This record gives sequence, structure tokens and C-alpha cells, in this order.
Amino acid sequence: MAVRTAEQYYESLRNMNQTAYILGEKVEDITTHPLTRGQIAGVAQTFALTKDPEGRKLLVAHSDLTGEDVNRFTRLYESSDDLLTKVKMLKFLSQRTGTCYMRCTGMDAINATAVVTYDIDAKHGTSYNKKFLEYLKYVQKNDLVVWSGVTDVKGDRSLRPSAQSDPDMYVHVVDKTGEGIVVRGAKIHQSGSLCANEGLILPSREMRENDSDYAVAFAIPADTKGMIHVYGRGSLEARVLEGIDLGNVDFGKFCPMVIFDNVFVPWERVFMCGEYEFAGPVVRLFGSYHRHSHGGCKCGVGDVLIGAAAAIAEYNGVPKASHINAKLVDMIKIVQAMYGCSLAASIEATQSNSGVYQVDSVLANTSKLFEGQEYHEVIRLLVDIAGGLVADIPSEKDLQNPDIGPLVEKYLKGAEGVPVEDRMRMFRLIEKLAFETRDIVSNIHGGGSPEAHRMTLLRDTDLEPKKNFARRLAGIKYEE
Amino acid sequence: MAVRTAEQYYESLRNMNQTAYILGEKVEDITTHPLTRGQIAGVAQTFALTKDPEGRKLLVAHSDLTGEDVNRFTRLYESSDDLLTKVKMLKFLSQRTGTCYMRCTGMDAINATAVVTYDIDAKHGTSYNKKFLEYLKYVQKNDLVVWSGVTDVKGDRSLRPSAQSDPDMYVHVVDKTGEGIVVRGAKIHQSGSLCANEGLILPSREMRENDSDYAVAFAIPADTKGMIHVYGRGSLEARVLEGIDLGNVDFGKFCPMVIFDNVFVPWERVFMCGEYEFAGPVVRLFGSYHRHSHGGCKCGVGDVLIGAAAAIAEYNGVPKASHINAKLVDMIKIVQAMYGCSLAASIEATQSNSGVYQVDSVLANTSKLFEGQEYHEVIRLLVDIAGGLVADIPSEKDLQNPDIGPLVEKYLKGAEGVPVEDRMRMFRLIEKLAFETRDIVSNIHGGGSPEAHRMTLLRDTDLEPKKNFARRLAGIKYEE
Amino acid sequence: MAVRTAEQYYESLRNMNQTAYILGEKVEDITTHPLTRGQIAGVAQTFALTKDPEGRKLLVAHSDLTGEDVNRFTRLYESSDDLLTKVKMLKFLSQRTGTCYMRCTGMDAINATAVVTYDIDAKHGTSYNKKFLEYLKYVQKNDLVVWSGVTDVKGDRSLRPSAQSDPDMYVHVVDKTGEGIVVRGAKIHQSGSLCANEGLILPSREMRENDSDYAVAFAIPADTKGMIHVYGRGSLEARVLEGIDLGNVDFGKFCPMVIFDNVFVPWERVFMCGEYEFAGPVVRLFGSYHRHSHGGCKCGVGDVLIGAAAAIAEYNGVPKASHINAKLVDMIKIVQAMYGCSLAASIEATQSNSGVYQVDSVLANTSKLFEGQEYHEVIRLLVDIAGGLVADIPSEKDLQNPDIGPLVEKYLKGAEGVPVEDRMRMFRLIEKLAFETRDIVSNIHGGGSPEAHRMTLLRDTDLEPKKNFARRLAGIKYEE
Amino acid sequence: MAVRTAEQYYESLRNMNQTAYILGEKVEDITTHPLTRGQIAGVAQTFALTKDPEGRKLLVAHSDLTGEDVNRFTRLYESSDDLLTKVKMLKFLSQRTGTCYMRCTGMDAINATAVVTYDIDAKHGTSYNKKFLEYLKYVQKNDLVVWSGVTDVKGDRSLRPSAQSDPDMYVHVVDKTGEGIVVRGAKIHQSGSLCANEGLILPSREMRENDSDYAVAFAIPADTKGMIHVYGRGSLEARVLEGIDLGNVDFGKFCPMVIFDNVFVPWERVFMCGEYEFAGPVVRLFGSYHRHSHGGCKCGVGDVLIGAAAAIAEYNGVPKASHINAKLVDMIKIVQAMYGCSLAASIEATQSNSGVYQVDSVLANTSKLFEGQEYHEVIRLLVDIAGGLVADIPSEKDLQNPDIGPLVEKYLKGAEGVPVEDRMRMFRLIEKLAFETRDIVSNIHGGGSPEAHRMTLLRDTDLEPKKNFARRLAGIKYEE
Repeated sequence: MAVRTAEQYYESLRNMNQTAYILGEKVEDITTHPLTRGQIAGVAQTFALTKDPEGRKLLVAHSDLTGEDVNRFTRLYESSDDLLTKVKMLKFLSQRTGTCYMRCTGMDAINATAVVTYDIDAKHGTSYNKKFLEYLKYVQKNDLVVWSGVTDVKGDRSLRPSAQSDPDMYVHVVDKTGEGIVVRGAKIHQSGSLCANEGLILPSREMRENDSDYAVAFAIPADTKGMIHVYGRGSLEARVLEGIDLGNVDFGKFCPMVIFDNVFVPWERVFMCGEYEFAGPVVRLFGSYHRHSHGGCKCGVGDVLIGAAAAIAEYNGVPKASHINAKLVDMIKIVQAMYGCSLAASIEATQSNSGVYQVDSVLANTSKLFEGQEYHEVIRLLVDIAGGLVADIPSEKDLQNPDIGPLVEKYLKGAEGVPVEDRMRMFRLIEKLAFETRDIVSNIHGGGSPEAHRMTLLRDTDLEPKKNFARRLAGIKYEE
Repeated sequence: MAVRTAEQYYESLRNMNQTAYILGEKVEDITTHPLTRGQIAGVAQTFALTKDPEGRKLLVAHSDLTGEDVNRFTRLYESSDDLLTKVKMLKFLSQRTGTCYMRCTGMDAINATAVVTYDIDAKHGTSYNKKFLEYLKYVQKNDLVVWSGVTDVKGDRSLRPSAQSDPDMYVHVVDKTGEGIVVRGAKIHQSGSLCANEGLILPSREMRENDSDYAVAFAIPADTKGMIHVYGRGSLEARVLEGIDLGNVDFGKFCPMVIFDNVFVPWERVFMCGEYEFAGPVVRLFGSYHRHSHGGCKCGVGDVLIGAAAAIAEYNGVPKASHINAKLVDMIKIVQAMYGCSLAASIEATQSNSGVYQVDSVLANTSKLFEGQEYHEVIRLLVDIAGGLVADIPSEKDLQNPDIGPLVEKYLKGAEGVPVEDRMRMFRLIEKLAFETRDIVSNIHGGGSPEAHRMTLLRDTDLEPKKNFARRLAGIKYEE
Repeated sequence: MAVRTAEQYYESLRNMNQTAYILGEKVEDITTHPLTRGQIAGVAQTFALTKDPEGRKLLVAHSDLTGEDVNRFTRLYESSDDLLTKVKMLKFLSQRTGTCYMRCTGMDAINATAVVTYDIDAKHGTSYNKKFLEYLKYVQKNDLVVWSGVTDVKGDRSLRPSAQSDPDMYVHVVDKTGEGIVVRGAKIHQSGSLCANEGLILPSREMRENDSDYAVAFAIPADTKGMIHVYGRGSLEARVLEGIDLGNVDFGKFCPMVIFDNVFVPWERVFMCGEYEFAGPVVRLFGSYHRHSHGGCKCGVGDVLIGAAAAIAEYNGVPKASHINAKLVDMIKIVQAMYGCSLAASIEATQSNSGVYQVDSVLANTSKLFEGQEYHEVIRLLVDIAGGLVADIPSEKDLQNPDIGPLVEKYLKGAEGVPVEDRMRMFRLIEKLAFETRDIVSNIHGGGSPEAHRMTLLRDTDLEPKKNFARRLAGIKYEE
Repeated sequence: MAVRTAEQYYESLRNMNQTAYILGEKVEDITTHPLTRGQIAGVAQTFALTKDPEGRKLLVAHSDLTGEDVNRFTRLYESSDDLLTKVKMLKFLSQRTGTCYMRCTGMDAINATAVVTYDIDAKHGTSYNKKFLEYLKYVQKNDLVVWSGVTDVKGDRSLRPSAQSDPDMYVHVVDKTGEGIVVRGAKIHQSGSLCANEGLILPSREMRENDSDYAVAFAIPADTKGMIHVYGRGSLEARVLEGIDLGNVDFGKFCPMVIFDNVFVPWERVFMCGEYEFAGPVVRLFGSYHRHSHGGCKCGVGDVLIGAAAAIAEYNGVPKASHINAKLVDMIKIVQAMYGCSLAASIEATQSNSGVYQVDSVLANTSKLFEGQEYHEVIRLLVDIAGGLVADIPSEKDLQNPDIGPLVEKYLKGAEGVPVEDRMRMFRLIEKLAFETRDIVSNIHGGGSPEAHRMTLLRDTDLEPKKNFARRLAGIKYEE
């Protein structure tokens, strides 16, 4: 059971009882709802591809914790090689889904929690790490999908958690009992909350002493009472039933808001509670891990972008145009920079006190900065290469209309030998890749916003030795 | 009647009988269909704002042709000042619609046709120019909305018109009679074809002798028999009925494919027929005019982008963050470059043989190059400033659901004093501005694709004097 | 005499008695010193080209002040057209010198002083404007070269003038007598101080009440007692005698530090003295004027850069390579953006209270932002196109050495028919254009540093109407 | 002796008898000539730093070939780890020299030759590889500095070697005897030719059958008869004796043209002779290795650029300005991208038939593309942060002049407590870092020109699987 099948995963979802709303209505079965099933199909690939020979090598690995083979998404980063393999696994999966499969945030949160609970215990004499590793064994043995709740709704962004006019703008502890704690607040943009078995909830920023109630980390099942998942709309969601026009025919993405309306968490699932000085470290470490993940997954999607550009140039009849080649090079360059910096962040990883490896933060954030800015240009280049038909291509229904269908087909023909339907499908995929809000906004804001990456990059760069290199060459005396 | 009201325009549409299909179904009334009415409302602003004092100055001008005041969209460019005013008029209208109002292509095509028919007549002794000016009087007197049909479907893009396996990949003459000509083919991305009274159809590329049948220009009513408008899908079309979630609450855009299924055109409406060496000039001139137009309209939309960024920063509680200010500067810089180069292209305009003024092509294409590339970064900056809620914000229906509405409202609160609905509306507008395919793809491919702008820029730059400047400074002898 | 000849200008310099140091030695005759004569030759072009038919149209204009034709460099901006012509004049001159000719700062300072003295008088009842116009008549009648002293040395840049530990870090009044004032301090990067007849000195930043002594503007002859010009080194200065290796064979540039060591200024030449609230306006207006100037002159140099790139491609044998064409387009695009925005800033000019026209600050600063950033990429593209020989090309002396000269000539051959000497000359010109510190640093920091341009751009953009455009489209109620 | 000392290296140079010309004059002793000694001091660091504990770890490694510890610059890449260590060694050395130390080209050429001679032998039954490994033992045992001669002068760049009007535009075999071959031609931009003991000469491009004489690889001592080194000028060379004004006080760079005027090479030093189909592979492999090297060394110089920017901000009094922090982030981002992609190219290395490891070409070229373009922006940012004093700062001699020295010192003061001399030194270093042609042109053209990197990137990217990823997601059938 430590490596589940896709069917076991589907069954586990059907056995759960999440409270979820979509466009104002309560949802019965997320595995079949047209607006959610594409995402669940994406997550299911993390199980299904363990049967693929290449996938198995990347997705399945031995866990020292359980002594068994487990799904890598539930595993600790025990070496630089593990981090390298993670990047390659995510690239592999994204090449095959063209979007998100929702398990990286959980994996990254698991590792960040493993590192920081160890440090909390060392300072405060608590036993969070032990509790957490017990929890992790449970996750590994059952190959659970874990969603990581980090981003709070934040209210007025200029105010700290405890300074907000409504104290619930960040998730916080509102009660403590002998059995556990009660939390309130809301997390937003929750990748995978509605296709997960479990949630691992972390603070979303550094905290000061008077924010102590907000310094809370814990795990709960995704259908815990009081937790409400609210679907958020995406630009292309309305195409979910429409064949060719769907773009990505199997997979999709969305990220709910999750409201914690007085949710109870038992003590054995509480991994931080008031140790405010560790809120910053855990979210920053999560952030670095997750930016490192993006270097893999967005590179995989990048391969799809590049492939779609090359394919549509072929379908349009101009596969060899020199300006198209130049644009392909520009696309490849950025995608490789993201990938290269993530690989390098793995190589330059260091071991934490807990034994878990931490990526090089400067390189991981560098990778993410390219995703947040230059990757948007990669998408523009895709649209540039594809041509105007990315917008305003007639629908599949026009193609099927007996009166105009033959005319539509006649006039949408491209290069000789390319079926019109294939060309339309490729344009629809490109529309999806370039204009689906969830993917594009995630490029920019996923794993923290660009300004956060920039501040992290600067804080984690030691400028002093660099100044001394300059002073030495200039013939200026200085003290090391 | 030479300056119509919005109501007169609506009535004229209701009196027409276009053949149009939307998502596989024939349309009855485009003025009320949810997928088309937003665009018509945009066009109607070009009439309605003639009542606005500021708008009137820009939109209404005297025509030497008719001796009356006419709507500027039907008028010839009689001076550099006319070209300057055009840019400002388009900026003004876009600030108020946030999208396209569909009459620039007609205006630009009218002027290109006026210039080139004069030159054809001078060479071939034809009388196209006189016929065309008669037609233009009719347009001016009735303040007609003219759509310009330029972009052919093109089939295999590596092949010339006459070399395609299907001869209909470019619009061409298939028959000539004493009364007129019969044309076949299809034009794609036809801004405004389905909200126009008339169409002015031009070739889309230079032609060679064996492409003579494709060198054809003509005008016809937009509901002429045999002409079929097929709606093309956009990323956010499905929101057309949804209040807050609509984004831009009044206005919208789409660009049909228009099929010419053996359409008859009487001789008095034919303005080029076989003079293949003028196909290039007319489309290039149209192109330069239209890139010049974009410098105005996209700068107006740019003001909306900048305004939305500044407003959402305020709603989020961080109007003064230094990185947000820096991003606003980057946005303004690009938008001003587009605007400045279009103004400059007006100043540097020269008079053609026909008397009509031609913009400076290098400056007009420079403006468009910024729109095609750097403007995409302006949009990214808007999303960057706004934050992750551009994707996955819950729907208006969630807000109205009695069970979760109050919670959704509570948790989507931003800065003190800003109604949640206003914040949601602004995020929805930003979603629309950043992710509506029709607008974004038009930034890149409207008025020709980036590579076309680049080739034009290079062809229209005289490198010889510049080489001589360099030679002279280097002390190299040369002949002027 | 109101339009001098080059010879008259040279003679005027020989009749002056500046105190100047170059590399630690006092200079006797700046018109012949190898490190200064190239610059003076550049300035002399502003006289010599008044004899050129095209040059005359740009350089000579009627002055309402004197009733005579004067050199445009001494004239007020009396209309938008004047500002347009200024841009074109500067472009014309830079195409012919490939560097700076030093008279724009004076022209821009003259105009800024004319505008602001008028406003000071209106508020304070002073008579600065009248005194200034008298002075200007004297300048116009004698066609004097005026250098503008703006940039102070600034000491610790985080401190205001009056807060510096040494009070002389900004030029300030140290004594006032019945005859005039005594000033002390130093200005740095003084374009043209050592080839000017007169200096017009302005404050370099806004001032507060306790900085009143620093709010001082005045004019003095460039050889006034106590004024010391100290030459600053440039990267390629050592080539000044070396024929081919010189790069730009006739013209050069440098910008001294000018020390005011207790310099006396008579009252009739004092145009601001203590009215601290006008220090900001005068320097900002000077800044906008001067950024507007750069849009002309750097576009002229840009034509040389583009011409050199096109010429060297030809000399290398690859004039038609598609990637070189693409790079030329990128070069042209940026140069045209600078030019276009400067032209547009002229068109959008407004009349000040004094009657003098003020450029549109947003457009003028936009132009300069491209110069400060993207223009550096233009230079990189020049080097990219030219190839590695921009560095490490053997010297003219190697070419002339009897033992190796024939071998050097043999192996430096490029395309058939291009003399090796021409190819070497072009490479040397490119080296000069791309690596002369004075030009490149001026691109970035001339007319204020990029951050100053950015702050000005943001301050001078009114965001409120733009926010309202967005609110209106989103359906949000607001008050105008 | 397998790891020499700096003194042994200097002695070896003094014992050689190179034919070299500098500015038209024959050179006696390159170790003392002011224009060459700075470079030799840089090379000497590759010996001296073997005594440094950190340096030793990077610079000294065991060779399987000789069974001894050798200097890594003479060693084969026996693993991915070797390639990683190479990148780090180069970064380490560049941080300490701020420029080039000239031994990478040799190291990269050695490895490329080892790989390709093996493949030639496999195909042609030759014994180049064995001869080459014997030669390499000699290099390793004597720790020789090897310069790699790749770039030919190329004549008309549109013509192949055998199509040039002068057959000597590429180095080629002009005679073969029983003892060896005679070669003629010239190599340009020869990093280190004048501070090397040996030269390893390779073809500079792919060849076709009729270019066979040009497909030649060989090794010779750097003072072989008939070989003439001609110094090429640099922008800041004239400062070589001038203390503070020197910029980089100890180290420098230049790259001669090397003429092969009928040079004899014995057969045991010939490693390719006519096997034209291997000319492309050896130069491409050298190119990938060398772009990989740049990711290390230019990242080390990048650390100096960043350090100089941070230091000068401090000296100017504005170390905490938010726009300066933002610019530092932009600098770090690009430098890290170069470094990260080079590390990643090591990780993704594969073993060649010869056993030597080959870097991942796509990642190595990606790194170089950033150096060739965005790194130029890093340099602009340095100048932007530093301010205008990068140009036109008075000289050390002005500082020492008794009349004006105290005034110059007074007015060049920056932040409290920073000696003026230190501030001047830092500005001079920045001038050197930003404007020394040899370094900047090498960023762009070193290791091949940008277009070469782009073509390599595209050729070495397999687009087919990427197209299939896109097809699969779009629901298009395809054959793998």
C-alpha cells in the first residue's frame, strides 16, 4: 500500500466527505464534477506513472523512516541526489500533464517541517519532530496526498497579523484544550486542497512575539469538520466539457480558498504552537524548496510550450523560418536557466541539523525569478510563433455544423497533410497554455511573489566577501 | 445624419441581415446576443461620445469631401495634425472602453485605399480613385461603420497565393461579368465585421504577376449574400452574463472569420482588380496606418492597466511600496514609448501623391514593436502588482450564497474601507485585461505580426547615410 | 557677429585665460592640447555647420529678444516647433560628430532660468528675469558658448547640502557684498566647461529652508578668477595622437570638475539667491529639457552606431546574415524610441508663465530612460555584430612596421575589395563608440541618473484619472 | 615538478624566446614589459594559489595518466565531479584576479582533443589519441601553460576556408615531409599565447572535403620558429604604470594575433591531419567546454562586479537605497544563472567513448548566452549604481599636485570615514571592470559569438519529444 495505484487514490477521495463549494453550489463528488475532475486526473498521474518504467525510477524510492519503498512525494530529502531526482521527477510529470499535479507543496512542506521542528525542539525542549515523523510514517505507509496550506488571505497587506482589524486574516489558534487546539482563518490559492487526503498547514510569514497565536503548524484530514473549500474561477474553466476546445484534453488546475471555521486539531498533529521565531524559518525554507520544485515542473511545462511552438510552426507550414528558430532559442534559453539553476541548487545543498538536505536558497530563488519574469516572455514567444489564431478560432461546434462545417474546415487548413482538427487542437492547447489564469498567475506568484524572491535572494547573498574581492583588486586595505 | 447617434447605429444594425454563426448556431440579433452585444456597445461609444464635449473635439471634424462635419472614423488624413488627433482620439476612446471599438481598421483602410488607388490610376489610367471617393462620400454622409478585411486565412504559410493546393486560401476573383466580379476566399480575425455596416476588403500581402486574381480590393455591405461571419472563441467569453465576474462590465471584443462564398461585387465598388504590383503598397500602407492607430488605442488601454495596478495596490493596502512604484514606472515607460512614437510618426508624416498624409513608417512600426513585445511585460507587471487573486478568486455566486457568502466576504477583505465587492470587481477587471485572448493576441499580432513589423522597419530605414556618417568619423573615404 | 564662425570661436578661446589642469599639469592652450582639442573641434561644428545649407536651417533662427538671427544654442524655446527643431538640430550635429558638442546644457539651462526667474519674480517681487534677459541678449549678440554648471560633487549622498560635514559639498554663497556674491564649492562632470566662454550655474537639487545659501544661480565668464577646471580621465584618452587608432579621428569629449574657490559674481549676473523653493523647479526643468536634448543627440550618435554596425558587417563579408538584420532592427527600434519620445515631448509641450515652452516631462523622461538602459544594449549589439576584433586589434604601428606590417595587413583582410586600413579604422571607431567612458557613462548618468528619471516620471504622471478609468470599467462607483 | 611554483613558471618564460611585437616594436622580456606583465601575474596565480589551502583543493588533483598529483589545468575531465570542481576553481581564481588567467582554453582544448582523437582513431585506424596522451603526460609532468589556438582570422566570413581568395585565411598544411608538417595562417584573439609554454592548435569550424588541408590539429612550443605574436590594443592599456588609475592594480589581460609563417610541426605533435569530418566535432566540443568554463570564471568576475557595486554604494553614502538593492538583485540573478547553468551542465555530463566526460551542451550554451547578453546589463547596473564618476574622475597626478591636490581631495570626498584615495581606487576598478575592451568583448565573443551559441543550442535540443508532449496533451494522435 506504500505506493498506491491511481484507482486506490480515486477510491480514497470517494470515501472522503469534503465540504466544498463551486460557483455558489455545494459539490457532491469532486472526482466527477467537470470543474474538478481534470485536476484529480493530474494528481492520479503521480500514482499511475509509478507503473511506467521511467516513471518508477523517479517516483518510487526507499524510505529510511518506514524501511519500505514509498512514493517520492511523501519522502524526506536525504541527499543532494534526492533533490536532483525531485527536480527531474517534476519535469517528467509536467511534460506529461502540461499543468500542475498538486503534490509538490505537500512534499516541500513535509521537508520544511521536518527540518524546523527539529530546531524548535533543540531550542525549546519540545517534541514536535518526533510527533511529525510519526505522522510522516502514516503518510508514507498510506501514500497520502498532502496539501500544504501556507498563503493566508492577509487582509490589509501593510499590517502584521495581530494588527489587522479582523484578527482572522491569518490562521491562528483561538482555543487550546487538553485534546488539541482550535484554529480559525483562511488560506487562499490552495494547490490541491480539494484533491488531497491530508493538509499540512504552516504559517505564511515571519512573526513577532505578539503574533504568537499565528505561529501554528499542524496536519489534518482534508475533510475535517469546519474546513470549507471554495473553488476560485479560472479564465478557461467554461471549456471543461468541450472536446477539442478544451485545450488540454485530460488535465486541469484550480486552487481553492480554504476557510478554517473553528477547526479542531488534536495535539499529536500540532507541530508548532507559539514558537513565533520559527515561523519565518519554516516558511522561508518551504519557499526555497518550492521554488526549487518550480524549476523542475515549470521546465517540464516549458518543454510543452516549446514543443507546441515547434508543432504549430510545422502545422502552419513554416517550420524552418529563421525568426521562428531564433524565438525557439529564446524559449529554450529561459526554460534551461530555470532548470539549470534548480539542478545547481540541488548540488549546492547543505545538510540541516535534522539531517534533511536544504537547497541553496540563492540558486533556487534565481530559478524562480526567471519563472516570475522571463518565463512570461516565453509564453509571449509561443503566441508570437503560433500566430493570431490563438484567439478567435471557431469552435468545434462550428466544425460540426452541417451548413458551415465544411467551409470552416476548408478555410482552417494549414500545411498539406495536417488534419484541420489537429491544427485546431494545437491552437486550443496553446490558448490553454498561454491564457489559463491558474497556470500563468502561478508562474508569477506561486511559491511567493517576485518581490519575496528578490528579498530572499539579497538576504541570502553574503556581500562582504564580494566587497573584499573588489577592495583587494583595487589595492584598498581592508580587514577580513 | 453625417454624425450619427448611437441609437441610429443600433437601428442600422437591426435593419441588416447578416449571416452569422456563433458556437455552431445561426444568430438572430447580434445587438442582443450575449456574446456580441458587448462589442457593439463599444462601437456605439464612437457615436455616443460625439455628445461629450471633449469627445466631440476629437471625434468630429470637417470633411473637404462632403463639405460637412463628419465622424473622424470616416475621414481622410489631410495633415499631420489629423494624424496627431487620430492618435489622441483613439487613446481617449480606449481609456473609456478598455478594449477595441472596431472602427480604426476601416479608417486606416479608407486612407490606404485613397492613396493607392490614386497611384494605380496614375500608372494604369484607371479610375479607381474617383470611384473610391464617391464611395467614401456615401460612407461619410451616412456615418457608416466600415470593417476592413485584410488578413487571409493563408493555408500553408510558406506558399504564395497562387501556389496553394486550394486556390481559395486567399480571397480572389473567380468570375468577372459586365456588372461586377465574384470573389471567393476567407478573411480571419476580422475586427468588427459583425458590427459594421460596410466592409472594405484589401489584399493581405504583396503579389506577383501570377497572383493577379488575388490583387483585388472592393467594398460591400456587411450583410451581402454569400458572406458568412463565424464567431471565434475567446478565453473569457463564458462570463458574458455574470455581473461582477464579467470583468469589463460593458464592453467586449471578438473577431470573426468571414467566409466569402462566391460573393458578387458591382464594378463601382471595385478599387483594384489585377494590378498586382499595388497589392504590397496598399497592405503596407494600411499596416503603417494601423500600427500608428495602435499607438493611440493601446496607450489608452495602457492607462487602464496602469490605473488598475495603482487601484489594486491601494485596495490591497500597499499603495506606497517602493517595488510597486518601480513597477508602475516600468509600465508607464512602455506605454509612453508606444504613444510617443505614434505621435512622432504623425509629426514626421509626409504627403502622398493623392494629397492624403502618410505616417512615418519607421516610427509607427517602432511603436508597434513595443506593443508586440514589451507591452506583454506591462501586463505581467499588472499581475505582479495585483497578486495571486487574479486567479482563483471565488465567484459572485459564492458571495451571494447564504451559507458561505458572509465567510467569503470576510476573508476577501483588503484595506480598511474598501468594499469587498469593489476589490473583487477590480480583480475581475484585471483578469479580463490580462487574460482575454482577443486583447492580448491583438497586442502581438494585430496590424501584422512582429516579424512583419521588423521587416518593415528594416526595409524603410535607409542605412546608406548612416554608414557614411560612420565612415566619415572613422576617416574613411567614401562616395555619397 | 550674432552668428559666429568657427574661427571666431577659436579666437575667443585663445583670448581667454582659464585655469585648467590636465593629469596634474597646468594647461597653456586648450585649443592645441591633444587631450582637449578634439572636444573643441566638436563645439566648433556648431559654428561651422551654420555655413552648411541643411545645417543653417537648423542652427540659425530669429530671436525676438535681439531682433536678429542668432545661433539656436543661445535661443529661447518660443514654440513647440522650436523644441522639435532643437531635437532635429542635435540629431544632425551628432550624426556628424559621433559625440558631444557641448552646447545643449547651456541652451537648456538658459531656458530653464528664463522660465523660473519669471516665477521667482512673480512671487518675490525680484527682478531676476529682467537681469537674465539682459544677460541673454549679451550671449546671443556675441554667440557665446555657455556651459551649464549643475551637478555638485555631493559628498555623502544621503545628506542634504546643509547637513554635510564639509559645507562646501554643494556650491553655495559664502559672502555677499554691495557688488555681488562670493561662492564656493565644486561642480563635477561639467560638459564643456573648458571650451565655453561663459558658465551658467544652477543648483543641482531641491532645497529646504536651511539650505538657502545653496539656492543660488548665476553666470560668469569661464575664466573667472578662482575657478579651476580639472580634467578627468577617460578610457581611451591615450589614443589622442594616434591616427587610425584614434577611432573618431576629429572629435572627442571630456567633462572636467570645476572648483569654485571663492569666486566673485556681480549682482547683475545673479539669478537666484536664497529663494530655496525654486531650486527644485529650476533643476527639474533643466533636467526635462536636457533629457529632451538627449533624445536628439543620442539618436544622432545612434545613427552612427547603426551605420558602423552595417558597415562592419559589410567589411566582414556578412552584410545579409539574418541574425545581423535582426540585431540592426533591435538597434533601430531603441534609437527610434528615444527620438520618437523626444519629438512627442515637443508636440505635447506647454507654455510657461514666462512664455517659454516647456517639454512634456513624462515623454522626455521616457526617452531618457531608454537611453539609460536599453541604449546600452544597442552598444552591445554593435559589438556583437562587429565581432571580437573590437578588442585586441593590432596597432597602426604594427601595420607600419617593415618586418610584420605586410603580415598584419594580410591577415586582417576582410571582404574582397575592402582596404585593410578601412576595416581597421571602422573597428577603431566602434571601439571608441562602445568603450569611451565619457560617452557611455553619459548615456546612463547624463541629465541625471536613471533613478532620478524614474522618480520624475512617476511624480509627473497623474494616476488618479487612470484609476478612475479602471474603476468605471469594473463597475465601481467613484467620485471624480 | 608536476605542480610548479609561480617562480618556476616565471623562470620558464624567461628561458623562452618568443617572437613578439607590441605597438610596432619587438619585445625583449614579456615578464617585465608593462603591457604584458599584468597578464603573466594573473597566470602565475594558477601556480601560487596551489599553496593556499582552499586553492590547493581546487587546483591540484590526481592524474590517472601520470599517477601523480598535477595542476588541474593540465588534467582530463574524468567525471561529473571533475567538471563541477573545474567551475568552482575558475570562480575561485576570478574572484582573486578580476580578469583572465589564461589557462582554461588550454585545459578545454586538451580535453576536446582527447575525446576526438579517440574517435578519429576508431574510424580511421590512426594513432592520434596515443600520441596525444604521450604529449599530455609531458604537459602534466612539467605543469606547462598551454594556450589553445582556435579562432582563425577568417577573411571574408561568408566564404569557406578553401574558397577564400587568399588560402591562408585559415591555418592549414602547406607541406608534409617525413619529419612533419608545415603550417601557415594566423589565429586571432589568442588568450594567453604570450604567457604560455605550449600551444595546442585546433581548427575553428566544421570543414568539408575540399577543406581537408585546414583540418589540422597540433601542438608546439610557444616560441617555435615562424610563430609571431602581435599584441592587440585595449581601451585602458595606457594606464599600465599609473598606480591608482590602473584600476586592477595587479592583473591584466590581452589576446595577441599569432601568425604562423610556415611553422614546422613534427609528426608526434600532429593530432589531426585531413580528417575533415572531425573538425566540426573538435571545435564544437572545445566550444561547449569553454562556455562551461566561462560559467565559472565570469561568475567569479561577477562577484567582483557585485562587490564593487556594493562597496561604491557604501563609499557614496547610500548603501541602503531601495533602488540600489533592486539593482544588486538583478546583478546577482544573472551571475547566478550563468553559474547555475554551468554547474548543471556538469551534473548532466555524459561519458564519451574516450572515457573523458562531456558537459551538457544545451546547459553550457545557455550559461554562455547569459554572459553574451544579460551580463552586459550587469555591467551597466554597476555603472548605474556607481554614478557618473566612473568617467572623468581626476587622475592620481592631480591628487598629488601641490596646488590643486588638496582641493581635488576635498571635493572627491564621499561618505564620512572613507579615504578619498579608496573611493578613487574603487571608481578606477569599476572603470576597468566596465570598460576594458578585452574583458567586455570576451563576455560577448569569447568561446564563440552569440549566434554560434544560439545555433548550437538549437541543434543540440531534440524538439521531437517536446512536440509529442504537446500532441499528447492536445489529444492528437502521433507516432513516437
